[in-house]
Amino acid sequence: MAEPYSPTARTRVTREPERAVYDRAAAYQVLDEGFICHVGFVVDNQPFVIPTGYGRSGDNLYIHGSAASRMLRNLDQGIAVCVTVTLLDGLVLARSIFNHSMNYRSVVVLGTAVAVEDSAEKLQALRALSEHILPGRWEESRQPNERELKATLVMRLPITEYSAKMRTGPPIDNEEDYSFLTWAGVVPLQMVPGSPINDPKLDPKTPVPCYVRSYSRTVAK
Amino acid sequence: MAEPYSPTARTRVTREPERAVYDRAAAYQVLDEGFICHVGFVVDNQPFVIPTGYGRSGDNLYIHGSAASRMLRNLDQGIAVCVTVTLLDGLVLARSIFNHSMNYRSVVVLGTAVAVEDSAEKLQALRALSEHILPGRWEESRQPNERELKATLVMRLPITEYSAKMRTGPPIDNEEDYSFLTWAGVVPLQMVPGSPINDPKLDPKTPVPCYVRSYSRTVAK
Repeated sequence: MAEPYSPTARTRVTREPERAVYDRAAAYQVLDEGFICHVGFVVDNQPFVIPTGYGRSGDNLYIHGSAASRMLRNLDQGIAVCVTVTLLDGLVLARSIFNHSMNYRSVVVLGTAVAVEDSAEKLQALRALSEHILPGRWEESRQPNERELKATLVMRLPITEYSAKMRTGPPIDNEEDYSFLTWAGVVPLQMVPGSPINDPKLDPKTPVPCYVRSYSRTVAK
Repeated sequence: MAEPYSPTARTRVTREPERAVYDRAAAYQVLDEGFICHVGFVVDNQPFVIPTGYGRSGDNLYIHGSAASRMLRNLDQGIAVCVTVTLLDGLVLARSIFNHSMNYRSVVVLGTAVAVEDSAEKLQALRALSEHILPGRWEESRQPNERELKATLVMRLPITEYSAKMRTGPPIDNEEDYSFLTWAGVVPLQMVPGSPINDPKLDPKTPVPCYVRSYSRTVAK
């Protein structure tokens, strides 16, 4: 997991390089905590950025293709994509406007995504995707049938060329600004689940499963 | 605000068209509630997707360019971008894996972004950006000086070609699956601020301002 990784010219972080992290384990921790990515691809020189769900299985990302029908025309040869996952951790309030910032962790993966054609790999990828979003749910759901598998597009992107970037901690002001009288610090932000809402069509005696009641997006560290 | 809007071939939603919203006011509500966008652009046929802050002023989006140094080489002619804002509202648990979904609201804006050169517009754009993220903060901070303004890249993108997409409500299962015995419903998700954390260099007697204490990402509706 933690082999040395050399960024390419395309993934070397040029701005605020002190925030760059090229360690695969750190990147995977971000990928495993998030579950929505933004997929970028190009059609007729126009970039498109579409949010969609994803999962990770080993050194591959599996992207749910439902949101990406515009990509379909090139799928058989594979398509150049950028997959970005961003976790927002807080607003950073400095004394000067210029030094305001955000605490975040993000990973950018570049490469060629191809459609998963093999039905066993597709099933395994969908399981990874589902377990990634909500561990425990797959087993308790009605499994996909052949028609549904065919109707679902899953793309595989090897995690080969990537970079991660993160900022943590308090604001950093210019020395001469520390005497400026204003509050400074961090407003933490977190994606928090609310109380589960029963489907109105559900028998209200159905218990809420443990994986729903105890759901949290923060991966145990 | 609510003039009829005709999507172009590039912004007409082709998948799940029932989730499409072409009303400008609805798109603006999403843009105003979010404050992180994912900017897509193309360099040497490779798409890049970078998270960054943004603000809206009238029918323009202003994007903070700090994260987008790779875009710089083409800035004077403008650069084709896609700006996507996604608000995640919940996990939707259906009885079948296939009908699992998410509740979300997203807006995609396509167009040509240009660097803001005029220093008055740049200042106004930075103010819009700051007030968009944390209303009230701008006035209480040390204002940008000329050197800082020059060092800050702000891009303007007219909100001309766009689409919005949203899903709300309970899961929708196939009729024959409603008898499948599993919990079904929605796990709401919300970005929630935690208790503000003082900068360790702050005089601890400094009061936490109201706009920090009462901070919430949900725009009053």
